[in-house]
Amino acid sequence: MGLAGVEVLVVLGSISDREYGEAVCRILKELGIGCRLTVASAHRSPDRVRKLIEEAEANDVKVFIAIAGLSAMLPGLIAAYTVKPVISLPLSRSMMGLDALLSSVQSPPGIPVACVGIDNSTNAAILAAEIVGLSRPDVKEKLIGYRVNLRRKVEEDAKILENYPGR
Amino acid sequence: MGLAGVEVLVVLGSISDREYGEAVCRILKELGIGCRLTVASAHRSPDRVRKLIEEAEANDVKVFIAIAGLSAMLPGLIAAYTVKPVISLPLSRSMMGLDALLSSVQSPPGIPVACVGIDNSTNAAILAAEIVGLSRPDVKEKLIGYRVNLRRKVEEDAKILENYPGR
Amino acid sequence: MGLAGVEVLVVLGSISDREYGEAVCRILKELGIGCRLTVASAHRSPDRVRKLIEEAEANDVKVFIAIAGLSAMLPGLIAAYTVKPVISLPLSRSMMGLDALLSSVQSPPGIPVACVGIDNSTNAAILAAEIVGLSRPDVKEKLIGYRVNLRRKVEEDAKILENYPGR
Amino acid sequence: MGLAGVEVLVVLGSISDREYGEAVCRILKELGIGCRLTVASAHRSPDRVRKLIEEAEANDVKVFIAIAGLSAMLPGLIAAYTVKPVISLPLSRSMMGLDALLSSVQSPPGIPVACVGIDNSTNAAILAAEIVGLSRPDVKEKLIGYRVNLRRKVEEDAKILENYPGR
Amino acid sequence: MGLAGVEVLVVLGSISDREYGEAVCRILKELGIGCRLTVASAHRSPDRVRKLIEEAEANDVKVFIAIAGLSAMLPGLIAAYTVKPVISLPLSRSMMGLDALLSSVQSPPGIPVACVGIDNSTNAAILAAEIVGLSRPDVKEKLIGYRVNLRRKVEEDAKILENYPGR
Amino acid sequence: MGLAGVEVLVVLGSISDREYGEAVCRILKELGIGCRLTVASAHRSPDRVRKLIEEAEANDVKVFIAIAGLSAMLPGLIAAYTVKPVISLPLSRSMMGLDALLSSVQSPPGIPVACVGIDNSTNAAILAAEIVGLSRPDVKEKLIGYRVNLRRKVEEDAKILENYPGR
Amino acid sequence: MGLAGVEVLVVLGSISDREYGEAVCRILKELGIGCRLTVASAHRSPDRVRKLIEEAEANDVKVFIAIAGLSAMLPGLIAAYTVKPVISLPLSRSMMGLDALLSSVQSPPGIPVACVGIDNSTNAAILAAEIVGLSRPDVKEKLIGYRVNLRRKVEEDAKILENYPGR
Amino acid sequence: MGLAGVEVLVVLGSISDREYGEAVCRILKELGIGCRLTVASAHRSPDRVRKLIEEAEANDVKVFIAIAGLSAMLPGLIAAYTVKPVISLPLSRSMMGLDALLSSVQSPPGIPVACVGIDNSTNAAILAAEIVGLSRPDVKEKLIGYRVNLRRKVEEDAKILENYPGR
Repeated sequence: MGLAGVEVLVVLGSISDREYGEAVCRILKELGIGCRLTVASAHRSPDRVRKLIEEAEANDVKVFIAIAGLSAMLPGLIAAYTVKPVISLPLSRSMMGLDALLSSVQSPPGIPVACVGIDNSTNAAILAAEIVGLSRPDVKEKLIGYRVNLRRKVEEDAKILENYPGR
Repeated sequence: MGLAGVEVLVVLGSISDREYGEAVCRILKELGIGCRLTVASAHRSPDRVRKLIEEAEANDVKVFIAIAGLSAMLPGLIAAYTVKPVISLPLSRSMMGLDALLSSVQSPPGIPVACVGIDNSTNAAILAAEIVGLSRPDVKEKLIGYRVNLRRKVEEDAKILENYPGR
Repeated sequence: MGLAGVEVLVVLGSISDREYGEAVCRILKELGIGCRLTVASAHRSPDRVRKLIEEAEANDVKVFIAIAGLSAMLPGLIAAYTVKPVISLPLSRSMMGLDALLSSVQSPPGIPVACVGIDNSTNAAILAAEIVGLSRPDVKEKLIGYRVNLRRKVEEDAKILENYPGR
Repeated sequence: MGLAGVEVLVVLGSISDREYGEAVCRILKELGIGCRLTVASAHRSPDRVRKLIEEAEANDVKVFIAIAGLSAMLPGLIAAYTVKPVISLPLSRSMMGLDALLSSVQSPPGIPVACVGIDNSTNAAILAAEIVGLSRPDVKEKLIGYRVNLRRKVEEDAKILENYPGR
Repeated sequence: MGLAGVEVLVVLGSISDREYGEAVCRILKELGIGCRLTVASAHRSPDRVRKLIEEAEANDVKVFIAIAGLSAMLPGLIAAYTVKPVISLPLSRSMMGLDALLSSVQSPPGIPVACVGIDNSTNAAILAAEIVGLSRPDVKEKLIGYRVNLRRKVEEDAKILENYPGR
Repeated sequence: MGLAGVEVLVVLGSISDREYGEAVCRILKELGIGCRLTVASAHRSPDRVRKLIEEAEANDVKVFIAIAGLSAMLPGLIAAYTVKPVISLPLSRSMMGLDALLSSVQSPPGIPVACVGIDNSTNAAILAAEIVGLSRPDVKEKLIGYRVNLRRKVEEDAKILENYPGR
Repeated sequence: MGLAGVEVLVVLGSISDREYGEAVCRILKELGIGCRLTVASAHRSPDRVRKLIEEAEANDVKVFIAIAGLSAMLPGLIAAYTVKPVISLPLSRSMMGLDALLSSVQSPPGIPVACVGIDNSTNAAILAAEIVGLSRPDVKEKLIGYRVNLRRKVEEDAKILENYPGR
Repeated sequence: MGLAGVEVLVVLGSISDREYGEAVCRILKELGIGCRLTVASAHRSPDRVRKLIEEAEANDVKVFIAIAGLSAMLPGLIAAYTVKPVISLPLSRSMMGLDALLSSVQSPPGIPVACVGIDNSTNAAILAAEIVGLSRPDVKEKLIGYRVNLRRKVEEDAKILENYPGR
């Protein structure tokens, strides 16, 4: 699929979760990180998962983000094929996301999955960026800027409430 | 590994769960069903899982039983490679088995996993036997006998308590 | 009720869950499997359950699918009357389906229930078809075709996202 | 089994839970209530359950106590065969008893089960006694005495701690 | 409040749960059982609870139904003041009703609460009726009739589906 | 920010939870308690949290209320910087609030957090008022009046239902 | 019972939980806070709870700590009788303490309970001390000292590990 | 503390969890990664956490591993002070680790925490190594070797079971 220049590969277990993948990519792009969004299901197309990871490895992809709900097997299967960091973004398709959370975070010793919060696409993206940022000072700078903005936003929000509720 | 004559392939995610696999096999053997116990980890050796299933398919294995705890990915990955029934035996290695239960039972539409109770090796074996029994009248007869025994045991247990607590 | 030619009997605990039963039957019919949908409540009409299973046994029904929410007793009671495989489709009528899931999957040793995911009517149907397919090559072929389609759909979905998010 | 004079029938799903049934009976006997302990499994011997309830009905048994763990189907099946009150004593055989609790308490509208706390054999017995006590003033008196004792015990326990921790 | 002739006292923890109490009363009335609906909060008006129970005791009320969500303390507090059976109807005001269920069903040894399913007003009413029916043959007859209707309804529902899905 | 005269400082982890903070302040004001609402995120602006608490300490703020969902770290971090009571109001932003509840209530020995119910802004405010009321008799009087009103409301609600359901 | 000089009244729902109450009192005494430990069960002796609170109110007790497992009704019932702060220490007598936690923390709007962590007697004591410390500078000083010690202990622990694991 | 050459800083919330930190360090050392183990509590010594992270940043530490149970606030607070990846190792000190898992994984958008499985010190170490390995080919090689060993171990385990259960 042409993965040259891709640092973070974002994999959806199902295209119906597309909005989460797009939210991840939007943030990565903003941070100047090369990313690609695709679909590969651990249950429906395990060989595609394997080939995708092999291609990604050949193209020096650094980080994988797997997005899945239910029995989220995708992050674990990607992790089985690489020694690069694999981030799991568990979705609340059922059981408030408890199924997807436990399915991915509880991977067995030796094959880690880095799990972020349920439906929290922002954190999947930022975690990937933090890892990429270790060797790209420009990304690290942007992350610091992003944090400064978060902090500034808090200050501004506090301003909005200033003196509330008054006397 | 020589799967000729094997009707039920029992796969452990880890040899540390061996006791459960052996319990399953004991019951299957007693019912006259050809079975084999092996180890293949979806996380640590996904290609071995694939090859195992291919070999099993070539040998007309009818049913698969996958035994795993934590993020039990094994039943789902086996199911990804076959259209034969795959039984999940979730183990309570952590979180009372809730992780392994949800990881396997909540597989996505199209790739079913047939889940039995947590740590319930008996039911994994009997369910496999019930499936095999559909085309082997001798197994069906043995299952009926097994049920008769269960029922008789209840009657005997009731006898033990007869008239308890008395007057 | 005339169960001649029925291979899979689909039983609703309540007609209010009819949509799930119909979804199951649609898939079974598409796969060329003889099925029938009926209602029988383990709590409200246990004798009807027993008679239904006896009639089904007399007609060589191969697989049972029980659909229920809350304290899903239906799959267990059907299992009590047969040594054929019984599939439980737990519904999320309350508590996100946790009640129906545990009520059916945790059946005691000796009387297995094959549980699929919460509200996952597709998997109840496909699991039944996989069991039927063991002795009907035409069904097995259709299941393989179904899988090929699932896989192809993944590839097509990946195409939709091709090069996303671009540069 | 001779149920003449039995007011409360205590049914174990498995003789392995005998201690709980005996604890229930000890309390009932102390309160002067005719009771009998037996075994009948909803999964392994549903017909025995039905016959037992029919015999109990013929003998004017007033209350049923069903003791079971896992997918506790026994209270629900007894309730299916009677319009007398059925008490469920859920056991913590797995999942801290959450499975047995939900399996029994969540019975569908129309077929109630009266659930008491997990492993709480005392409450199963006292609840049965409270129901029997509605038409037997002597039992009611004993229950009031039992309460007085509970209250006195609290006062005595408070005495033990009197002035603790002192100055 | 005039409790003469009242056999079942239905107590709401909050008038905002009125619909559940009314549903309970409708069923009780239909079964010819004298009932009264009132409000008394264990947290906001514990003394009212005590006085209400004392008045109820003086009027020979037989059964109490307590309806509450959140930390459902009402059933336990009523139980603390009587040796008559107390039924808890836990409501899903938060946490899917898990809080109200555990708050009431897990009462300590000696002070039982008879818990029915979450939001299941029908079962609270029918359980009360079953207890009342022990000494009122007319109520028992009506309950048997109610069951016959439930069973008939199942048969009718099955008729609706007859031959579904056809060939 | 000018905390003179502020007795209760209400801190939002995010301005998106503003409605809860305002509900808290409305009650505090009604009770005549000086309060201020602001925003400070333990994750996004930990130093702001520290400075805020230092300023609050310098102004003799007596009680802190921290309002947060998800991994509610705010109450714990405030507690880390003060030996004044810190109240946590956990919000149901995900997982029915179980995450925020456990994140705050399970703080380690030595650094307590006083947790109230999920989304229960009233109780956060009243608990703070109860603490303030220990040294302000006028607040205590108002709290007693508030309770009297709650009790009266129960009586009035009971009146509404008087004689329901009638004969 | 002589509550003169008692600032914190610690109430056990059952003497079997004595160790937790004693742990609470040890800490309170060390901090120079007048406390008393007693037993009063909301389920078994609700009137004793009421009288105890009335006596405590007459003696200007400032804070209540209620210690209970299962359906922890004690903190809520104490809260019903006072407008002083009531702390709940939920115990893990069953279900990992989830029952006691939800039973107390989820009290209805208007009657707050201040819940600390499961089995966390230290935090129940320290929270009470923080409240008392608002009007007793000596206690506040001791709490600050306690915190300094906690911090120092962390530094010392860090020293123990210094340079671990070395090269 | 001298963090020169440290690539992974492992922080314990409490020295009582030392064994987990040592297990992490053993693996990191084996993989040739510079690491240091220390203690810093987010609740008891938040300023120490901040200073530690500042010192770590000054020394170019690449990855943080935070080990904590209960309300695991440590990973979130570290994440608040850095844009480097922070790994959370949640411990099962209570509630089967569900509290520590949710406390860390559910961090708010913008401040990600990379959570691994409960008590799974191996995965915390390997995940850190995978991140370090992105810029250190020798570490990557060792990780590949580690995977080969895991795979080989599976094959050897399979050998042990060869032909089991035999005929």
